[in-house]
Amino acid sequence: MASNSVTGFRLAGVHCGLKQEGVKDIALLVSDRPCTAAGLFTTNCVKAAPVLYNRAILAAPGATIRAVIANTGSANACTGSQGLANVRQTAVEVADAVGCEAGEVLALSTGVIGTQLPMESITSGIRALAGRLSTGGWADAANAIMTTDTRPKLASVRLPDGYTITGIAKGAGMIAPNMATMLAIIATDADVPRPLLASALKHAADSSFNRIVVDGDMSTNDTVFALANGASGVVVQDGAAFEAALAGVCAQLAQAIVRDGEGATKFVTLHVTGAPDEATARIIARQIATSPLVKTAFYGGDPNWGRVLCAAGYSGVEIDPAQMALWLLDANGAPVLQLVKGGCPTDYDEPAAIALMQAPEWGVRLDLGSGKAKTWLWTCDLSHEYVTINGHYRT
Amino acid sequence: MASNSVTGFRLAGVHCGLKQEGVKDIALLVSDRPCTAAGLFTTNCVKAAPVLYNRAILAAPGATIRAVIANTGSANACTGSQGLANVRQTAVEVADAVGCEAGEVLALSTGVIGTQLPMESITSGIRALAGRLSTGGWADAANAIMTTDTRPKLASVRLPDGYTITGIAKGAGMIAPNMATMLAIIATDADVPRPLLASALKHAADSSFNRIVVDGDMSTNDTVFALANGASGVVVQDGAAFEAALAGVCAQLAQAIVRDGEGATKFVTLHVTGAPDEATARIIARQIATSPLVKTAFYGGDPNWGRVLCAAGYSGVEIDPAQMALWLLDANGAPVLQLVKGGCPTDYDEPAAIALMQAPEWGVRLDLGSGKAKTWLWTCDLSHEYVTINGHYRT
Repeated sequence: MASNSVTGFRLAGVHCGLKQEGVKDIALLVSDRPCTAAGLFTTNCVKAAPVLYNRAILAAPGATIRAVIANTGSANACTGSQGLANVRQTAVEVADAVGCEAGEVLALSTGVIGTQLPMESITSGIRALAGRLSTGGWADAANAIMTTDTRPKLASVRLPDGYTITGIAKGAGMIAPNMATMLAIIATDADVPRPLLASALKHAADSSFNRIVVDGDMSTNDTVFALANGASGVVVQDGAAFEAALAGVCAQLAQAIVRDGEGATKFVTLHVTGAPDEATARIIARQIATSPLVKTAFYGGDPNWGRVLCAAGYSGVEIDPAQMALWLLDANGAPVLQLVKGGCPTDYDEPAAIALMQAPEWGVRLDLGSGKAKTWLWTCDLSHEYVTINGHYRT
Repeated sequence: MASNSVTGFRLAGVHCGLKQEGVKDIALLVSDRPCTAAGLFTTNCVKAAPVLYNRAILAAPGATIRAVIANTGSANACTGSQGLANVRQTAVEVADAVGCEAGEVLALSTGVIGTQLPMESITSGIRALAGRLSTGGWADAANAIMTTDTRPKLASVRLPDGYTITGIAKGAGMIAPNMATMLAIIATDADVPRPLLASALKHAADSSFNRIVVDGDMSTNDTVFALANGASGVVVQDGAAFEAALAGVCAQLAQAIVRDGEGATKFVTLHVTGAPDEATARIIARQIATSPLVKTAFYGGDPNWGRVLCAAGYSGVEIDPAQMALWLLDANGAPVLQLVKGGCPTDYDEPAAIALMQAPEWGVRLDLGSGKAKTWLWTCDLSHEYVTINGHYRT
């Protein structure tokens, strides 16, 4: 059994005609026994049909899950009642193929908005998937949910207690706090009561998926699932250890999404400290991380700290510019150069700042000098390649 | 006298060493008599020294203005007390050179944040400007305030009543509603009482400068001035006609800023209609116009309407996706193709939609189907050239 396998879970990823020939485009995860399950969904008002469907499934008291199907090529968003009917039919077909109830199937979609699922391809895909399920199928499944991702995203941890947590994700564009365009499925063979699973997932997302910004766009389809089937025979007693391990897997996946952001060449950890409260710190961090001028300066490796202060200044919260300080950090978060003190530039070493920002990974800390609250997030730069990818996505 | 001249106003633009040799980089406007004046300033918390200075000047009851100096190369923002001292010194030098009080001089700066004004260059620039002032100097001044602008921005109107309104502006990047990175100076030889001038300017900005989005970044220096010197001998009686004419000049300048947005290849008028209230419509319009995915689709001429609905959906206001409709409009605002109805795509002519969006100018209307309020704004696309310009601005 591969090291990332999770007892009782089998997966597959195949090509069924949603993308060009030879590219895996549909994935299936099946548990051999019912799972407790938790889900987090996009807060976009425009919710894709599968989001509406999954929310309803998981809202049922005592709901258990046996399978998750995920297709690319179509987001099944803005597809009206036909779109919902197609999700229902997909679930029925998966249930038939793997031997469970339709109400035990969750469905994920990613791709272009406004196109109906091509049901003939989906149907043939489900048949092919059902014949290829294996406990070692995680990498195939991670491959099959990619869109503009350049590499699959998979993270796994085995705990001393004797259970495993493994997750896969897709990201690339439309990545913003409070769920990005991302799909993630995380499975464990521990026996985890649903309330614990749900709260652990929420906390884990708060320190991972909800802290990443690629372009600030939030998709119609963002979803993360956690499934626990208990097949290891280990009943989680130490909720804190489980939550920490789950958070670790989520953090690895979230970082992988930013590192593989559309066109990204830099991975930047942004800290905002010295805020009056955490909400203020978050608003400012998000404004900085979505500023095209900041992101293009990151791309150019240009220590143009003025753009960071400027973005903080227009975030809509009151700040005192004369109290601001700014540091460049190394990849481990250690301060290397202080560029700003009291709202004005220090006499810093410009070539050293440029050299640091040419590296693929570093950090920035902006201190507001007006309190003790703080936050952080992971973001990337805005490159020519981002424009190339998104200027010609469909046509 | 050139047709855009305004009686009693003389201008000049020269090179003084702030930009590369041969490029005009500093401008001066002088009125031969005191002007009533009004100003609008950036709402960024991080305000450049000249913004703080000008606000204080104009806050004085009965303040009158004789001159406006504008330098490029340095924004004089995040420059502390030295930055403010440099503005004061600049005003004193201008006053000496043109024969007025220092308190009658306004000062504008644009350029990099965090560098002090190079006062030797500024001083020599002021001397050179004072010797070259002419009533025909509007184009030179418009040239001398450009930064990444590719062309000067000048608009003028002569009213039947016998007075003229002429304005110049700079824009290019950091353009967002509620003032962009823009500087604008608008002058009239009408005699306009200060309260009327201030309210007319505010209304004019609301339908022009406050409706433009290039990249959504709001600068530390945004400023627009209106000056009225009464030299035509015409006392404005018809406030509505004056306001309409001023609004027309502002609209021309604002449109010119978007058309010349950094790297812009498309000029898009975005209408949001059917909103429960205007505030909601504005929030949604701004979210759409700042979405990198929407802007790159505009760049590619890709009728990817899903990204527009998606951006509307994550704007933070409640909307019902099933009520949404979307049209492509021609350059005159007439509907050409309906792409979305009831939240789902129509059977529209895709090649026709692509053809329309390849044009340099067109529009989009998103109807929310939930009220009668509406808004509009002018925006542009996000291109490779934007990234090139801003990835390498300073270095």
